[in-house]
Amino acid sequence: MKTTKNCITRLYQYREALYRMKTSGCQKVFSNDLAEAIGANSSQVRKDFSLFGISGNKRGGYGIHELMDQLDTLFNKNQMRKIIVVGVGNIGRALMNYESFARELILIEAAFDIDPMKYDREALIPVLPMEELQDYITHNKIKMAIIAVPYFAAQQVFDLMSAAGIRGVVNFSPVSLKTPEDVFVNNVNVQLEIDIVHYFVNALDKKE
Amino acid sequence: MKTTKNCITRLYQYREALYRMKTSGCQKVFSNDLAEAIGANSSQVRKDFSLFGISGNKRGGYGIHELMDQLDTLFNKNQMRKIIVVGVGNIGRALMNYESFARELILIEAAFDIDPMKYDREALIPVLPMEELQDYITHNKIKMAIIAVPYFAAQQVFDLMSAAGIRGVVNFSPVSLKTPEDVFVNNVNVQLEIDIVHYFVNALDKKE
Repeated sequence: MKTTKNCITRLYQYREALYRMKTSGCQKVFSNDLAEAIGANSSQVRKDFSLFGISGNKRGGYGIHELMDQLDTLFNKNQMRKIIVVGVGNIGRALMNYESFARELILIEAAFDIDPMKYDREALIPVLPMEELQDYITHNKIKMAIIAVPYFAAQQVFDLMSAAGIRGVVNFSPVSLKTPEDVFVNNVNVQLEIDIVHYFVNALDKKE
Repeated sequence: MKTTKNCITRLYQYREALYRMKTSGCQKVFSNDLAEAIGANSSQVRKDFSLFGISGNKRGGYGIHELMDQLDTLFNKNQMRKIIVVGVGNIGRALMNYESFARELILIEAAFDIDPMKYDREALIPVLPMEELQDYITHNKIKMAIIAVPYFAAQQVFDLMSAAGIRGVVNFSPVSLKTPEDVFVNNVNVQLEIDIVHYFVNALDKKE
């Protein structure tokens, strides 16, 4: 799973890079351009593509349009990605207001919180009481959720969601969730990311 | 670097787990408890610890206090981690308000933006004009920064920062930065994380 995840991460990064190239008017791209854009090497790029049956032309490079189409098909990018947010704190609210989601067809359908002061059924993204979470998931066949609750509530929220049918979670709580095999969880731990940077900054300092 | 990063990530996850165990009143922990808490196996736990010279007692387990102290020393956890935020949008603002940073001695000292409407020198975390970024870094010997600007501005901001002395960056912009060897960059790409979850949800769907 780890290798697959790394490969998929790179494929998505290629796609981001291609999007920027397209926006700036490029038509063709070579594997070493893509490699440079994401900090890999060009043989890795060709290997990743061939693994998923995407082929280019060594001399002519890849057509950016075709390549993006192939990646989009591979990742069902033309499918709307419906997702809910649980926990309307700082991070949850920031994600609800994240502008580039629309471009990526990521649609936050609803948010949930335990604080009645935050409920807002009329908002563009309605904020609903936690008690309605399971019904909402089942009723609207939601498969993906973002967890942005405090760490002590994360496991309970996760259990509720997965029992109701959630199959994929992006977890912003700084806690490793106990998860069944048929649910995929991706952790984003901001403190951890800062700590890792701090560790390497110190290590670089000592080397000098 | 990749392996080291994975190992360090796990060490930090152990520490998070230990913190929770300590808070709930535990004194001792066995490697398999820690393994379960972060979804690894117990031989991995022992291997990670021994790599950094941390030893436990097979029968008695590890003392939670001692273990946390050792990890804290290893990671300079008792050192305040001063950091600045560049880009006061949704994500930047959410990070500025992130409550658990204080507990972790993560201190956001200042934020920077190009929008004069956002400037606020009197705020708890002052928001300053981008023109002051380089002077501020040099003057206050800041080594770490969070980039939370739109993707098209990220590289330029990064170049300014690293020229002024920044050595570690957490990058929230969905773009791979071109970086010199003596600056460590950690990318947090929210869209990418959602896309990866989406990919696995689809893959799981097809398996059923």
